[in-house]
Amino acid sequence: MAKKYTKKHEVSYYECDINQTMTFPSMLGVVIKTSEDQSDQLGRGSEFVNSFGLTWVITNYSMEINRLPRVGEVISVTTQAMEYNKFFCYRNFWIHDEDGKELVKIESVFVLMDFVNRKMSSVNEEIIAPFESEKIKKIKRQEKIEKIDSGFMLPYRVRFYDIDSNQHVNNAMYFNWIIDVLGYDFLTTHVPEKVIIRFDKEVEYGNEIESHFEQIPIENGVKTKHEIRMQEQLYCEANIIWKNK
Amino acid sequence: MAKKYTKKHEVSYYECDINQTMTFPSMLGVVIKTSEDQSDQLGRGSEFVNSFGLTWVITNYSMEINRLPRVGEVISVTTQAMEYNKFFCYRNFWIHDEDGKELVKIESVFVLMDFVNRKMSSVNEEIIAPFESEKIKKIKRQEKIEKIDSGFMLPYRVRFYDIDSNQHVNNAMYFNWIIDVLGYDFLTTHVPEKVIIRFDKEVEYGNEIESHFEQIPIENGVKTKHEIRMQEQLYCEANIIWKNK
Repeated sequence: MAKKYTKKHEVSYYECDINQTMTFPSMLGVVIKTSEDQSDQLGRGSEFVNSFGLTWVITNYSMEINRLPRVGEVISVTTQAMEYNKFFCYRNFWIHDEDGKELVKIESVFVLMDFVNRKMSSVNEEIIAPFESEKIKKIKRQEKIEKIDSGFMLPYRVRFYDIDSNQHVNNAMYFNWIIDVLGYDFLTTHVPEKVIIRFDKEVEYGNEIESHFEQIPIENGVKTKHEIRMQEQLYCEANIIWKNK
Repeated sequence: MAKKYTKKHEVSYYECDINQTMTFPSMLGVVIKTSEDQSDQLGRGSEFVNSFGLTWVITNYSMEINRLPRVGEVISVTTQAMEYNKFFCYRNFWIHDEDGKELVKIESVFVLMDFVNRKMSSVNEEIIAPFESEKIKKIKRQEKIEKIDSGFMLPYRVRFYDIDSNQHVNNAMYFNWIIDVLGYDFLTTHVPEKVIIRFDKEVEYGNEIESHFEQIPIENGVKTKHEIRMQEQLYCEANIIWKNK
């Protein structure tokens, strides 16, 4: 059984939007920090990973949201590196409230990338052994992300603060562009229930990306489809299920 | 002597930019959270302030930066509501490192605003008594902010995530626009030493603002002048002294 690691976090006003709940970039920032803390604790922090010429890259998230964390509450963030095969590491995250109720569950896929040739590397046993994940043969299929049929888009320029201390555009930042296009009225009358997202290609500083989206009515809510594109090239795609507030 | 309040904070990777040091929005977020925590502790949190139809607004910051906080370090953030007169409250913040060395000192000016008519209110004794600030007669003059003579500008649209849980565009967000215009090359070769900023008018969701700037060489560094404008109207102005890295 893979090792679990838990950390408490007090949700600040500046991590929350006008709905009084955590923004996606803040929530993912806190979540990923937990996995970095576990790695450090096990002697497998970024320096160790970099010593092999490698760096971790996240390719997919799948989130189930019972309720978004609220301003002022103390949440527990738990992470566990569940399984891995030749190329992919499957890591889960859970956010619980003070009563132990599960607020959010996030499944993610991590890969190791060679940071010189920017190519995917096979999983290095020395890096992952201390996490005690289960080795599996199978490549786990991610839920299919539906493409946009006919949508709208807004352009966004990648800003200096979109690059974090890990030296590239933080995946969590893609949510700034994905969420913003939906607009104030939508975002104050809908609550996210489920998110699937895939990061296909890295956006770079100075790029001007297009955030495409489409809304499809479903029972008691809306499904939104998202694509981050640049000159016909796909960089990121996502589907979100929202319920009416 | 006014009451001091101190809180520790571990600097996360997502609060830092590519220089491995805290961004202004993150640093101000943490700093202002400290003053909110002190207010809560003294029974003067936002609910109490709102019960008078009032809300706190920050009009000025003046920062002296010895060194910006770095990824991974644990900082102590201290706040003290120093003095007040009929309309203005003067509050200081200090950030110290683990050896007790002062990294950043921030002086700020707070005013109480009536949130119905959006007008400044006189200082309410009931709200501020527990802070034990010194009452003064004098209005403290803020350092003069030099205007731009001839500059450049980039437009920025105010995004949904620029409004925080306090329901309006967070002052700290203005730094996104002020810093971003300087560009990657400048921001990776210069370190801020001193910042003075004044918030004149509130930017609102959906606005497209212009971030104007001018660079002036000074000994061992650069002075940058900034103005956030919309249709000739000034919303925010700042001067920053940078030293060469």
